[in-house]
Amino acid sequence: MQQEDSLLNGIRLPADLRKLPLEELPKLCSEIRNYIIDTLSGIGGHFASNLGVVELTVALHYVFETPKDRLIWDVGHQTYPHKILTGRKEKLSTVRKFKGLSGFPKREESVYDLYNTGHAGTSISQALGEAVARDLTGKDYSVAAIIGDASIATGMALEAMNHAGHLKKDLLVVLNDNYMSISKNVGSISNYLNNIISSHFYLNWKRIFYTFLKWFPIVGPAMESFFKRVEKGFKDVFTPGGLFEDLGFIYIGPEDGHDVIRLVKMLSKIKTMKGPVLFHTITQKGKGYIPAEKDPIKYHGVTPFRKEDGAMDSGDSSKISYSKIVGKVLSDLTEKNPRIAAITPAMIEGSGLGEYVSKFPDHVYDVGIAEQHSVAFAGAMTNGDVIPYMCIYSTFLTRGMDQLVEDVSLMNLPVRFVIDRAGCVGPDGETHQGLFDLSYLLSLPNMDVFVPSSGQDLVDSLKYMENYDKSPIAIRFPKASVELSGLDFSAEKDLKPGSFRVIQRGTDIALLSIGSMLEEAKKATSILEQEGYSVTLIDLVWLRPLGKEALDEELSHVRHFAILDESYLDGGASGYLLNRISPEYLGRFIKTFAFPSEVIHHGERKEIFAEYGLDAISISKFLRENVKKEVLHGKRN
Amino acid sequence: MQQEDSLLNGIRLPADLRKLPLEELPKLCSEIRNYIIDTLSGIGGHFASNLGVVELTVALHYVFETPKDRLIWDVGHQTYPHKILTGRKEKLSTVRKFKGLSGFPKREESVYDLYNTGHAGTSISQALGEAVARDLTGKDYSVAAIIGDASIATGMALEAMNHAGHLKKDLLVVLNDNYMSISKNVGSISNYLNNIISSHFYLNWKRIFYTFLKWFPIVGPAMESFFKRVEKGFKDVFTPGGLFEDLGFIYIGPEDGHDVIRLVKMLSKIKTMKGPVLFHTITQKGKGYIPAEKDPIKYHGVTPFRKEDGAMDSGDSSKISYSKIVGKVLSDLTEKNPRIAAITPAMIEGSGLGEYVSKFPDHVYDVGIAEQHSVAFAGAMTNGDVIPYMCIYSTFLTRGMDQLVEDVSLMNLPVRFVIDRAGCVGPDGETHQGLFDLSYLLSLPNMDVFVPSSGQDLVDSLKYMENYDKSPIAIRFPKASVELSGLDFSAEKDLKPGSFRVIQRGTDIALLSIGSMLEEAKKATSILEQEGYSVTLIDLVWLRPLGKEALDEELSHVRHFAILDESYLDGGASGYLLNRISPEYLGRFIKTFAFPSEVIHHGERKEIFAEYGLDAISISKFLRENVKKEVLHGKRN
Repeated sequence: MQQEDSLLNGIRLPADLRKLPLEELPKLCSEIRNYIIDTLSGIGGHFASNLGVVELTVALHYVFETPKDRLIWDVGHQTYPHKILTGRKEKLSTVRKFKGLSGFPKREESVYDLYNTGHAGTSISQALGEAVARDLTGKDYSVAAIIGDASIATGMALEAMNHAGHLKKDLLVVLNDNYMSISKNVGSISNYLNNIISSHFYLNWKRIFYTFLKWFPIVGPAMESFFKRVEKGFKDVFTPGGLFEDLGFIYIGPEDGHDVIRLVKMLSKIKTMKGPVLFHTITQKGKGYIPAEKDPIKYHGVTPFRKEDGAMDSGDSSKISYSKIVGKVLSDLTEKNPRIAAITPAMIEGSGLGEYVSKFPDHVYDVGIAEQHSVAFAGAMTNGDVIPYMCIYSTFLTRGMDQLVEDVSLMNLPVRFVIDRAGCVGPDGETHQGLFDLSYLLSLPNMDVFVPSSGQDLVDSLKYMENYDKSPIAIRFPKASVELSGLDFSAEKDLKPGSFRVIQRGTDIALLSIGSMLEEAKKATSILEQEGYSVTLIDLVWLRPLGKEALDEELSHVRHFAILDESYLDGGASGYLLNRISPEYLGRFIKTFAFPSEVIHHGERKEIFAEYGLDAISISKFLRENVKKEVLHGKRN
Repeated sequence: MQQEDSLLNGIRLPADLRKLPLEELPKLCSEIRNYIIDTLSGIGGHFASNLGVVELTVALHYVFETPKDRLIWDVGHQTYPHKILTGRKEKLSTVRKFKGLSGFPKREESVYDLYNTGHAGTSISQALGEAVARDLTGKDYSVAAIIGDASIATGMALEAMNHAGHLKKDLLVVLNDNYMSISKNVGSISNYLNNIISSHFYLNWKRIFYTFLKWFPIVGPAMESFFKRVEKGFKDVFTPGGLFEDLGFIYIGPEDGHDVIRLVKMLSKIKTMKGPVLFHTITQKGKGYIPAEKDPIKYHGVTPFRKEDGAMDSGDSSKISYSKIVGKVLSDLTEKNPRIAAITPAMIEGSGLGEYVSKFPDHVYDVGIAEQHSVAFAGAMTNGDVIPYMCIYSTFLTRGMDQLVEDVSLMNLPVRFVIDRAGCVGPDGETHQGLFDLSYLLSLPNMDVFVPSSGQDLVDSLKYMENYDKSPIAIRFPKASVELSGLDFSAEKDLKPGSFRVIQRGTDIALLSIGSMLEEAKKATSILEQEGYSVTLIDLVWLRPLGKEALDEELSHVRHFAILDESYLDGGASGYLLNRISPEYLGRFIKTFAFPSEVIHHGERKEIFAEYGLDAISISKFLRENVKKEVLHGKRN
C-alpha cells in the first residue's frame, strides 16, 4: 500500500520520526491516515477516533522523548496511530483478532504502552502517579495524559484533576476535544467546552480593550490596578478555560488539533512549563475520511467497509442483537407505561437505545460516562414512582459497585439492572470482559438475579421486571444476536422466581448451566449421550431467588454434577451455589467450568471459549475423563 | 435537661417548627445545640459536624415542607439536629448503640430520612433522580441536597453536578462548607472554595465599578455593551462561584451558615428559583462548643466527655489500634527506604497515619474523598519505582472496585493494599460494613491476599509486603486493638506465601478460620473439646496463594469441616475455598459461618457477632447439633 518513497516506511520507532524535518510532518500524517483507512477498510476496528488523533499523535511523539517521557492514553481505542509509530505498523492488520494486536494499549506489546487501558478517565490519575514517583525518586522526564472531552468529565478524571491541581506537580493533560464520546456527548462540562470554542473570538477583544484603556490616561491605570486585584476573574473574561484554572491547571487553547506544525510548536513550549497544564485541542472524529466525518457515531467502530464510499455490510437482517431487543422491549413498555425510564452511561447506541430515545426522549437518560452517579440516580428514581431500567455493560457496572451496595441494595430500591456484554466480550478483550458481575451481584443483599439463556428469555425478563418492585433485580446477557423470527414480543410470561428448567434428566452427571452457557451445555450433553452417559441438563435461570430444595432434589438423582458459568471462576456464581447446595451432595461436585483467574485476552467468543476449555468439546472431554458412567443405566430411573 | 418553657419541647415534628415565629429560631438553635452537647457528652458519637449544621437544619425544615419536600443529607453523620426535629429527640441517647438509633439517616426510622447514607457524594445524584422522577410523574415538590465541601469534590458528586447542570431540573444543592472532611480538606476545589471566601470583599467592588461606569456617559455604555457580550466571564470578576456556574448551576453565596434568620430569608427566595442552584454556606465544625471549635478533628467523633472542658478518656494506653500499627510500621519502613509512600482517601487520622505524615510529609498522599483516583494513582506509582501502600477502609475500597480490576490487577501492578475496618465495623453500621472485600479481592486475577489474625501478623505482613513486588497484594483486618506490649516491631519474618497454620489437629471437625475469626475459633475449639470433640483448628492466613494440597491433606484426616469468615457469606472467601478444595472432601463440609445476605445493622462487634451466630458459643452449638463425634477418638491419630 505504501509507496517506496513514503516517510512512514522510514519510521520504525519514534526516534526515526524525530529525525524528520518539521515541514515533512503533514505528509507523514497523511500517510498514516491513509494507512489506517486502507487497513481498517479490510478488517474493521475502532476507526473515527483514530483518524482524529493522527496529528496529535505525531506531534506528541515528535516533541516528547518517548519512551523516556511518558505518554498515557486515556481509553486507548485511539492508539492506532501510536501503534503505527511504535513498531507495530505491519501488525495493525491483526488488530482485535485472536492472538493479534490489542485494540487498546498493551504493556506486553510495547514499552511505549505504559498502561493497558479501556475504561475512561484513568489517564490523569496515572500521569499524576508517574509525576509523583518521578519527583520522589529524583528522576527527570515529562508526563502527558491524552484524554477526550467525554472522559475528562468522568468522576475519577475530575478527582485526579482536583488532586493534580493541588499537588502542583509538572504534568500535561492534552484534552482531545471532538465534542463526543462514542455517542454525542452530554453534560455541563461538554456544554462548557463548546462555549469555549464558540466564544474563542473574545480573545480578539482583549487586544482591543487594552488599546482602549490606553486612551484614558487617568481612568486606564486605575482600572488596570483594579483588574490586577481581580486578576483571576479578569482572565476569565478574556481567556477561556476558567473551569480548569479553578481546578489548579494552567489552561492553554483551544488549538486546532489537525495543524501538526502548530501543535509541535505549542507542545515544545508547553513541555518546558511548570505545574499542571491543560492543553485543549479541537479535533474531528473521522478526520480525512468523508463518510466518517459525516457520521462519526456510525464509524466509531467499523466492520470491513468499501473504501470508496464507506459502505458497510448492514449485517444479517434476519438477526437481532440482544442490545436491540432491550431497546425494542423498553420502547414497547413505555408506550403503555409512562413511568418507565432507561438510564445509560454514554452508551445509547451500544445499548440498543437509539430508536427508543428518538421516540421517547424524556424517558431515556444518558448521564455521560458517570457510572457511579448513574446507579445512585436510578435508585433515587424509584423513590419517585419511576421504574428505572439501568442499561449498562457488565465491564462498566463495576465502576458503580459501591453505589450498587450503598445506594441500591442496602435500601432495597427496585432498580432494574440490564447488564449487556456480560461474560466473554470478544474482540475488545481483557479490559472489557464482563466476568465479574455475577459474583458481585450475588454478594449484594436484596439483589435478585435472573440470567436469560435465550433471546426469548431476554424479552420475557425485560417485560417481567416491569412489575418486579419488591427488590432490585439484575439480568445479564452476552454480546450476541439471535434469530428475529423466533422471538415473540407479545407474550406475557410468569418467570416463576426461584424456578429453573430441567431440560432433561439422567443419572451420571448433571450440568448446571447458567444463562449464556446453555448452548454449549446442550452440545456437551449430546456428545456425552452419544458416548453412553446419562445426563441431567439444568438451565439455571434464577440465581436469586434460588430453588435450593428443588436443586438438591435433582442432584440427589445424579452421581456427579458440574457448573457451567460464563464468568471468572472466582467472579461468578459457582461459589454462591456451592455454599447453598446441601453438603450431602457436594461430594458429587466435579468442577466449575469458568474462566481461570488470569487475564483473558481478545478474540472471537468461540475462540476464547475453546482456549479456556469452555466449549462443548472441551467440557465433554473433561467430563469423560473424570466421570465414570454407570455400567447399567436406568438403575434409578 | 430541657427547661419546661423550652421551644424544643414543643416540637415533635417539623410542622411544629414551622409554627414558630422567625425571631424565635436563634433560641431554638441554641437549645438544640445544648441538647446535642448534653446528650453526646454522655454517650459519644459524631459531634463537631452536628454542632456545625444546627442553624442550617432548622432553616431547611422551616422553609421546606418536609417530608413532601425532599431534604437529602450527604454522608449523614451530621443529621442529629435533623433527627431531633423529626420525632427522635428522646431516642438520640441510643444513637449508634445496638438496636438504638442509627448514626446516619435511616428510612426505617423516619419518613423524613429519604436515604440510608454513609458514603460521601451521593446526595446530588439522589436529588437529581428525585427531580427527574417528579417531573416525569407530574408531581410538585422541592428537592434539596445538603453536602459538605469535601464530599462535593468526590467523583460521583461532580458527575452528578455535570448531569444536573445539563438537565436543568429545579433542584437545590446546599454546600455546607466547613473547610474540612474528617481531616483537613485537600484538593483544588477546596482551595477554590477558600479563595471564594477570602475574596468575598470583591462583591463590594461591583457597586463601585458600576457607579464608576456611569461617570462616563460615552465610554460607559460602550463598555456595558462589551460586558454584556462577555456576561459570564464578567460575572466571574465580581461574583465567586464560577466553577459551579461552569457546571450549569446558579451560584449563591457565600453566606454565614450560623445566621439562621438570614438563612431562612435566603432559602425562601431560593426555593422559588428555577433550574439547579448551588447555595454556598459557611459553617464551623464544633460551633458553640469551644473545645470542638478549637480541635474539630479530635471532636469529629467522640467518646463520652466531660462537658465543662471536653476532656475525653484517653483510652487504654497499654493498647494500640490496628490502624496505629499501620502508621508506625510504615513510618519505620520509610526511615530506611525512601521509596515507600502511603496513600489515603481523606482518612489520615482514621488510618493511623497522623504521626507518619508529620514525620514524612512527602511520603503520605491524602487524595481527598477520591477512592477511584487513589487506586489508579497508586498503580501508576509502581511504574516509577515507588512502593505504594494504599491505606483504606474496606467499605470505601468498594468505590475503587473498577480501578482494582482495570488499573491494578489486570496489569499486575504491585500495589500494597492495607484494608482497615474489614468485616463487621460496629457502631457505624450498615453503610460502613466491610463485608465484601474478600469476595472481590479474590475475584481479581493476580491479587494475592493475606489475612492477619493478630496484631503481630499485621506488623509482620506490613513489613513483608515491602518486597512483595511480583503482584498486587492485599491485607485486611478489623477495627480492633491489641496489647502493645505483646508486639515485636523489629522481627523480620518470612510469611511463606501459600502456608497456613495448623493450631491443633483432631479428627471430628476442622475449623478453617480466616483472619479475624481466629479468636472465636479458638474459643469454639475449647468448648467443643470440653464436650469431647476432636478438633482441627487452622488459621488460614494466606488465601492467595492458597496451600491447596496441604489443605486437602488436613481435610483428609477429619470427618467434617467448617469455614469461619468475617464477611458476607456471598461476599467472602468461602465460595473461593469451596471451588478449590478437592471434591472428594467437599462432602465433609458443614457450613460457612459468615454474615447472611441481609442488611447488617450497627452495634458493638460482639453484639453483632452474637446476633448472627458468629460468636464461639453459637458456632460450637451449631456444630454440636450437626456433627456427631466419633465414639472412639484417636482412630486415625
